[in-house]
Amino acid sequence: MNARIIAIGSELLGPLRIDTNSLAITERLNAIGVSVVQKTVVGDDRKELAAVIADALGVVDLIVCTGGLGPTADDVTREAVAELLGVPLDLDPTLLEGIQKRFARRGLEMPEINKRQAMVPRGAVVLPNPIGTAAGLLLEHQGTRILLLPGPPAEMTQMLEGIIRDHLTPTPDGRLFRRILKITGRTESDVDSLVQPTYARWPERRVPIDTTILASLGQIELHLTARARDASDAEDAFDVAEREVRDLLGESVYSADGSPIEAVVGRLLADRGWTIALAESCTGGLTTSRLTDIPGSSRYVEMACVCYSNAAKVAWLGVPQALIDEHGAVSERVARAMALGVRRRAGTTVGVGITGIAGPGGGSPDKPVGTVAIAVLAGDAERVQTFRFIGPRDSVKSQSAQAAMNLLRLLLLN
Amino acid sequence: MNARIIAIGSELLGPLRIDTNSLAITERLNAIGVSVVQKTVVGDDRKELAAVIADALGVVDLIVCTGGLGPTADDVTREAVAELLGVPLDLDPTLLEGIQKRFARRGLEMPEINKRQAMVPRGAVVLPNPIGTAAGLLLEHQGTRILLLPGPPAEMTQMLEGIIRDHLTPTPDGRLFRRILKITGRTESDVDSLVQPTYARWPERRVPIDTTILASLGQIELHLTARARDASDAEDAFDVAEREVRDLLGESVYSADGSPIEAVVGRLLADRGWTIALAESCTGGLTTSRLTDIPGSSRYVEMACVCYSNAAKVAWLGVPQALIDEHGAVSERVARAMALGVRRRAGTTVGVGITGIAGPGGGSPDKPVGTVAIAVLAGDAERVQTFRFIGPRDSVKSQSAQAAMNLLRLLLLN
Repeated sequence: MNARIIAIGSELLGPLRIDTNSLAITERLNAIGVSVVQKTVVGDDRKELAAVIADALGVVDLIVCTGGLGPTADDVTREAVAELLGVPLDLDPTLLEGIQKRFARRGLEMPEINKRQAMVPRGAVVLPNPIGTAAGLLLEHQGTRILLLPGPPAEMTQMLEGIIRDHLTPTPDGRLFRRILKITGRTESDVDSLVQPTYARWPERRVPIDTTILASLGQIELHLTARARDASDAEDAFDVAEREVRDLLGESVYSADGSPIEAVVGRLLADRGWTIALAESCTGGLTTSRLTDIPGSSRYVEMACVCYSNAAKVAWLGVPQALIDEHGAVSERVARAMALGVRRRAGTTVGVGITGIAGPGGGSPDKPVGTVAIAVLAGDAERVQTFRFIGPRDSVKSQSAQAAMNLLRLLLLN
Repeated sequence: MNARIIAIGSELLGPLRIDTNSLAITERLNAIGVSVVQKTVVGDDRKELAAVIADALGVVDLIVCTGGLGPTADDVTREAVAELLGVPLDLDPTLLEGIQKRFARRGLEMPEINKRQAMVPRGAVVLPNPIGTAAGLLLEHQGTRILLLPGPPAEMTQMLEGIIRDHLTPTPDGRLFRRILKITGRTESDVDSLVQPTYARWPERRVPIDTTILASLGQIELHLTARARDASDAEDAFDVAEREVRDLLGESVYSADGSPIEAVVGRLLADRGWTIALAESCTGGLTTSRLTDIPGSSRYVEMACVCYSNAAKVAWLGVPQALIDEHGAVSERVARAMALGVRRRAGTTVGVGITGIAGPGGGSPDKPVGTVAIAVLAGDAERVQTFRFIGPRDSVKSQSAQAAMNLLRLLLLN
């Protein structure tokens, strides 16, 4: 079974924005054994869009379109498809009522233009959108199924899950399975030189595994892909492969189930019934924000103090001024004093202190931009370390938050 | 003059990699007045590629292909084009010599397969590649120019520069310019119903402007694109259009130069020499993290307190326990007490308090998930408001941070 993906939106034809929805769609389609054979981006143009869809009808099994289902005049997907298939657009009263209710819940009246979002090409299956006003639509023509999804990624993803569950069946020649091993605290070349001789042998196994290595800020991912009839065949092959990688990389592998490090750390804290307080300087609250992205984090995140100025470090955290004068605000001693101070004042089990130079200004030959000292205290144990990160301000912030959570993870593991 | 871009490579049809070459190509084409009207990704498949090119012949002025010019069997671009245009592939001796010399310089003999890279569809102009073995090719058929570029971004970009300089002249009808107006505090349909009657007239102006409207979390963007001979013509037209939008939307327009709201707020604070302290609950530090993404923000961000628990709100911010008991932690009274408390204790000009229910748990019929109270105090002025955001946890956090910065902006403006 094969598919074409069409992303609709004039902004996707400019030099600034790119269609990334197709990656998520491909991932989900691959998982049920559907291959993507072509991707197209068209502008908000009824004729262009109709031509691209017409071109795929009868050629592929499935066409997935994203975008152009909004309420405004430049949203033309519904009209383009209805015109192409020669069917009228009918007003769906249930859909209209749902949209009106959505506005009412926010104390607003539905603007007249949103009525367009309740228009449905005759014969289409309406796919409800739990988090937006744009319903999805599923049609069939010349043996090709046409799936129309909204453009906003959150709405698109949620709807796609439901459609795959309810309307698309896995193909018999095996599905594509994927396992992602997340690694931190090592460079990409380090990981690759250690692991490459091992993953190079995986494609020859009974259930062959393809491997891709991807690096982003402070994190390496190994993407393992296998085609198999049953989930259990793929999972068994992945388990063996994962064990081999863990033998080589040890505790650097922090997740094999897709969890980000903030979820891994959160689980470790919750399991012990421990609480945490953070004192952040150069990261500006990013570490705490990431920890609190996890539902239920209020059970273990007690509080955090973003102490940008030295005065705040002294007044709010009780860092001795003399320590700052002697060692500088960016030093392991001050990071440790911050962690100690915030833990004592918040009365938590765990304390974290992060102090560094995010840049672009503030560096010195001795402590260049990217120098970051991190201290993590838990019970009697502690880990204190200085890092030298490379990159612009937001990248230093992001790597620092990642490193702080990794130190915390290693401390909690041992 | 218009163009289609075709990216060739099976790896671009998987769930992990995306074609980003088209962004750089679009940028350079727009600069000489060429619009991109469609983008396609195809795999390393001769028939599929030929069909996509055939589909554009005689339809657009220019087809730009990237990829598939390597030496291996899965590089099929040369063959697909020659076959489609009905011309033979000739061995180009100069090209062959150049490739052999490249290998010789590295002390290597040219592998036999690299000979394929010296094969040229008859009639094509050969475009030298100073940093790789894959030459570019330029052909013309049915009034459409076909440009074949290598896939590696560095090779592609360098070659494109030369082609634009030597082979593509700026179109006499002008270049493309772009201005982005950023809007917050309104819904997409609200913005569109107010502005649409105005922007609908722009394409008829002397310097015509096309408009795209884009919504993301807590923010709307109007992308204005104009075709003009000179930058000054476009800028003048944009100035008029921007004034019209500002007349309709007032202070909801927060930026016309690409700045995010944290930079706009930062500028307002720095201009006044004011300092800010924040007390965040449901946003978990996200607002402070975004404010400190701006270089130089240490001049005005004094500190922030992420007080997740009620105990922390009382102990660190001096919020009266009675106030929490009477009104609940998520209330305008508590938000205001948080802002007051953090401002008083930090000694800053501005104080911000944010308290809400990010979800998925913690909601009640009275205060559902997404209820967020925000207070901003500056000098004697204040803005306090309750919002009802919709969406998952990270989206509520993100909309809350955006709303807090917008309240702050409005307070600083007035």
